[in-house]
Amino acid sequence: MLDALFKPKSVAVIGASAKELNIGNRIIRNLVEFGYTGAIYPINPKVDEVRGVKAYKSILDVPTEVDVVHLPVHAAAVPQIIEECGRKGVKFVILNGGGFSEIGPVGAVIEEECIAKAKKYGIRIFGPNCQGIINTALESRAYCNFTFTRPDPGVVSLVALSGGVAELLHQTLFQMGIGTRMYASNGNACDVSIPDILRYYGKDEGTHAVVLYVEGLRDPQTFLKAAQEVVPKKPILAMKAGRTEAGAHAAASHTGGLAKKDITTDLIFEKAGILSFHDEEELCQAAGIFTTQPIPKGNRVGVITNTGGPAVIATDVLVSGGLTIPPLSEKSTAILKEKLFKEVIVRNPLDILATANADHFRSGLDAMMDDDGIDSIFISMVTPFFVDNDSIARQIVEVNNQKRKPIVCTLMTDKIGCAETVLIMKDGGVPCYDFPSSAARALTALSKYGEISRRETGSVKRFDDVDRGKAEAIVKKAQGAGRKMLDAAETYGILAAYGIPVADWKVAANADDAEKTASEIGFPVVVKVDSASVVHKSDVGGVALNLQDGTAVRAAVEKMGKAFQAPDLKFLVQKYLSGGKEAVVGAKAEKEVGHLVMCGVGGIYIEILEDVAFKLSPVTDIEAQSMLSSLKAAPLLKGVRGEKGIDEKALTDVIQRVSQLVNDVPVIQEMDLNPIIAFEDSLFVVDARMIL
Amino acid sequence: MLDALFKPKSVAVIGASAKELNIGNRIIRNLVEFGYTGAIYPINPKVDEVRGVKAYKSILDVPTEVDVVHLPVHAAAVPQIIEECGRKGVKFVILNGGGFSEIGPVGAVIEEECIAKAKKYGIRIFGPNCQGIINTALESRAYCNFTFTRPDPGVVSLVALSGGVAELLHQTLFQMGIGTRMYASNGNACDVSIPDILRYYGKDEGTHAVVLYVEGLRDPQTFLKAAQEVVPKKPILAMKAGRTEAGAHAAASHTGGLAKKDITTDLIFEKAGILSFHDEEELCQAAGIFTTQPIPKGNRVGVITNTGGPAVIATDVLVSGGLTIPPLSEKSTAILKEKLFKEVIVRNPLDILATANADHFRSGLDAMMDDDGIDSIFISMVTPFFVDNDSIARQIVEVNNQKRKPIVCTLMTDKIGCAETVLIMKDGGVPCYDFPSSAARALTALSKYGEISRRETGSVKRFDDVDRGKAEAIVKKAQGAGRKMLDAAETYGILAAYGIPVADWKVAANADDAEKTASEIGFPVVVKVDSASVVHKSDVGGVALNLQDGTAVRAAVEKMGKAFQAPDLKFLVQKYLSGGKEAVVGAKAEKEVGHLVMCGVGGIYIEILEDVAFKLSPVTDIEAQSMLSSLKAAPLLKGVRGEKGIDEKALTDVIQRVSQLVNDVPVIQEMDLNPIIAFEDSLFVVDARMIL
Repeated sequence: MLDALFKPKSVAVIGASAKELNIGNRIIRNLVEFGYTGAIYPINPKVDEVRGVKAYKSILDVPTEVDVVHLPVHAAAVPQIIEECGRKGVKFVILNGGGFSEIGPVGAVIEEECIAKAKKYGIRIFGPNCQGIINTALESRAYCNFTFTRPDPGVVSLVALSGGVAELLHQTLFQMGIGTRMYASNGNACDVSIPDILRYYGKDEGTHAVVLYVEGLRDPQTFLKAAQEVVPKKPILAMKAGRTEAGAHAAASHTGGLAKKDITTDLIFEKAGILSFHDEEELCQAAGIFTTQPIPKGNRVGVITNTGGPAVIATDVLVSGGLTIPPLSEKSTAILKEKLFKEVIVRNPLDILATANADHFRSGLDAMMDDDGIDSIFISMVTPFFVDNDSIARQIVEVNNQKRKPIVCTLMTDKIGCAETVLIMKDGGVPCYDFPSSAARALTALSKYGEISRRETGSVKRFDDVDRGKAEAIVKKAQGAGRKMLDAAETYGILAAYGIPVADWKVAANADDAEKTASEIGFPVVVKVDSASVVHKSDVGGVALNLQDGTAVRAAVEKMGKAFQAPDLKFLVQKYLSGGKEAVVGAKAEKEVGHLVMCGVGGIYIEILEDVAFKLSPVTDIEAQSMLSSLKAAPLLKGVRGEKGIDEKALTDVIQRVSQLVNDVPVIQEMDLNPIIAFEDSLFVVDARMIL
Repeated sequence: MLDALFKPKSVAVIGASAKELNIGNRIIRNLVEFGYTGAIYPINPKVDEVRGVKAYKSILDVPTEVDVVHLPVHAAAVPQIIEECGRKGVKFVILNGGGFSEIGPVGAVIEEECIAKAKKYGIRIFGPNCQGIINTALESRAYCNFTFTRPDPGVVSLVALSGGVAELLHQTLFQMGIGTRMYASNGNACDVSIPDILRYYGKDEGTHAVVLYVEGLRDPQTFLKAAQEVVPKKPILAMKAGRTEAGAHAAASHTGGLAKKDITTDLIFEKAGILSFHDEEELCQAAGIFTTQPIPKGNRVGVITNTGGPAVIATDVLVSGGLTIPPLSEKSTAILKEKLFKEVIVRNPLDILATANADHFRSGLDAMMDDDGIDSIFISMVTPFFVDNDSIARQIVEVNNQKRKPIVCTLMTDKIGCAETVLIMKDGGVPCYDFPSSAARALTALSKYGEISRRETGSVKRFDDVDRGKAEAIVKKAQGAGRKMLDAAETYGILAAYGIPVADWKVAANADDAEKTASEIGFPVVVKVDSASVVHKSDVGGVALNLQDGTAVRAAVEKMGKAFQAPDLKFLVQKYLSGGKEAVVGAKAEKEVGHLVMCGVGGIYIEILEDVAFKLSPVTDIEAQSMLSSLKAAPLLKGVRGEKGIDEKALTDVIQRVSQLVNDVPVIQEMDLNPIIAFEDSLFVVDARMIL
């Protein structure tokens, strides 16, 4: 539990000096000025007090227990001080200083030493190379941090390793008037981790929404579990930076993370139901709407406006985000025709004209609140000088206070001239945005969280007809022989064990054998060389397609026999299939996260358009289906241009069987079923590859 | 010229009353308070003065000439007043009131009457149903408008029909501290149009950038010409709303525009070199950077930061926008290794650490300014309390004042605590943004304008081998016969006249004829029914593919003869081609804009993925080439998976020949060459359709 960190009864600051520009001094000032409710202990052998607070020569001299110790000092000095903190029984140390793993191996050694010492005494480390935490709760007022944004109590809690971004988000929430509940920026995060903090925020009743920034995930499985615990209780709004190759490089250079684009983080966000953002401003703005509004029951938006253009802009954004602007019910229409100006054309979006007064706004809002076809209300309001904007605002607030359906408002106004209108809306808890697009995106995020809350994630189907033991035995045998790449018989053997249909095949030792085998399988056939030393078979003439008779088979085998003089040379003879559609299913082990399962359809599409879908294993039935429907080439599945579609059920089965296989036999690092030839009522793997 | 509108020597306001909530009263107040330099004439028979300004009973009583008359009155009264204005010799009337074409046919009649009366007297109408204009130039200070944002002089001019959006943009520019030069919101725009205003802004030396909002283009050709005049002199930053089906409907409902998604506006923006935005905030933020920064010579960005995360975010946005973050030169690297903290790893992005002081920032900036591999500089700056942020800001300003390369800055700070830092940057003309993403997008827009300034648009190739007379004769004959759909012989005849290769074909009257024709053409052949009454031939069994001999041809023709009993029934016999790749080229007349020319490649891609590219005719050589390269299936052109590519030159030729054809014979409303079978060194149209 992180209670002693976020609700410390006492905070000591080691190295706090009387100098204004000293970080320890600033932490003391922050604690004092923000009204920290616990005891503050500056630790400095050379001074009697810091900012009027009595100082102690050593942490060991402090008269009470100490929950949190700030160590805003350079790395070299830290291990020794942790030792002292251990003897004192300190619960958390916040290592604000740099010089740890972020500077390379020398710092990493010190970091390890700190971890070891802390472990010895049961101390938890926050950081190092970090800003610290904040808890704005009245009973704590813990501003354990040296940054510049004065905390403002709110219901959004935020967490980011990056101090710069944490501060940016914090400042933004402050400027938006939303404030924060808790704040954590834990730098190198050598001990207290993002999942720890997420879990803590999840349990904190004062936190209604969590804002998260990451550049990659250290321990994705733990992260996923923590997020899955939190999301049903409150939304997590997250941004992952380092999305581009160059961005990932920039991230790696300051975090030591992986310098490559990762799709795993997106998949984890999706699986956990985290709302994902690509823009830091949008992230904060979306957080704002969660602070006051109920979650909508559906995606149908009623739009009320007193000016045309902004409603057009909002409609574009709402609809692009998957929401709909349905017609109003007959009842609503009848009521509104009665109550609005006669020039008003009653429809959705509903333009009640610039001259609309408070009654008109109220009528529109009431009608939409009563309309069963509407789940949320978007208000676009400009403040012409010739109407009573304050009264309009009061009506909006009244309806908002009913909390029947969520409301969002783009309030386009002169914030000085119309300060009162702005204030009425703010005090009334109406989420107001300067821009129609921002307001629309915030409502989209709110609706999306509603969707996530309602979504069916499906179940992981366990296929009972699989022979796990057989697959494991094949793998074990290959491992015993020191091989990483499985041969055709092994690969197809494992597929057979997992009920994945493969085009009829048999391995032949020579031309005679191949000819005989081919006639058993039935023509036409394919012949492929099968040898550990031949990797890209088709590129080197190791594949002969569509052989129509025994003579052709013999000729092909003899030619390959000459071309490939490998001692383990064999020949795979396989039924040649034509006329179906190509599909691909694969899996790949990702460090610490399990396997990614991949699927694509349509042959050439997969390569040219990178038209593939990924999910984390284990893949549920619903996820497998959504993999297919998310492909750009999805219409191919149903058939187009008079061509037949494919057996989707069989393909989702293969996806799930592959998922089960890599879960059961996780030593499989990579596997590709490529291509699968899919027909209207069946499919067959015609080439496959497995690497341990 | 719009001088008398934007620089009026006198402004009269008809119907200005003493009441605060009266629009005329507000306009007079705005003129007075903003310090309008000309004469103000309230016109009201019932009062002696309005806001201390002497009032006149009638416009005819005004003692001097009148440049602009505001008519903030309802439509019905307007025509009569225009008549009076005409007699007075007024130059412009601004019709602020509603009740015109925006409410339907009744209002449209009044609008027409106003136009007629104005024309009679040579008066120009601004509006109706509009807000008006503003010119902040010191010598004018013309605030001819009743909205709430107090104008703040600047170098950005803006124009939008929508009053709500114009005011939103105006307010945003005000809040950003950018201000505006001129402002025009012309509502129904029955006379003075957006192109008129663009041209005027283009010639105004005080306007450095133009911000434009549209929901559709009224007279696209004129708009295109005006924009093409302006863009080489100054950037136009534009947003088109109504991008989605629902958004277009919302737009149509308040402008009476077309309720459909239009791609023409995008194509016109592209052709004119207008910078296109999908977000109103982004639009304004991008405008900001043009107010102070030079245009970069290329897309290579140097990033300097004193905190890691925000630079990662910026890198993602910059790179996604087509910019690059190249390595620093050896010389820069050597200098920086000398001048920065020893812990700094010298690279791009360059993280100079949170403890960096003014000298460190200056060294980084100077190195990048001197580095020939860098075209612009992105600064990411947080303001830690322990460094002298004001001095850093002063160094940035000094470098900025050199105007060697553009600078943009994300300044993440406490705007109150660091007010001085913020002020130094602002006064120094450094474009500062709260968010790394916003700053990066602004720099992307600036760089994109640089690209546009440097771009080659190519030339429209005139093919001399075409026979325009023949094509016109074919069209005339069909028109004479009252036909809109051309038959196969006509269609192919026109294609032949324009040098577009068609697979060998001939029309046969009966089976004998067809069999003979087929052997002349050479097998295999296709047979298609050719009759005006059969439209979707292939859906109704009117196409027989890949006929290998005379018997097959005879059988096909006889079968079709029975199935289709049309009196004009003939049979098109055509060479059957196989093995190539499919492509599509088409053209479609768009109201008032000419023709859109379309191209796609890859058969099934075109339908499933809507993978097509459009350009406005006439299509230049470079545009034709860029159509191909912009296709998702573009790699198909070069060949993939061992397949051969296609003759790109031949395909761009067809695009340009089609462009020339629809320009020469604009009565062609729609034509489709679908499919074209393309080979490595040739291509042939195998089916085509033309509608007049």
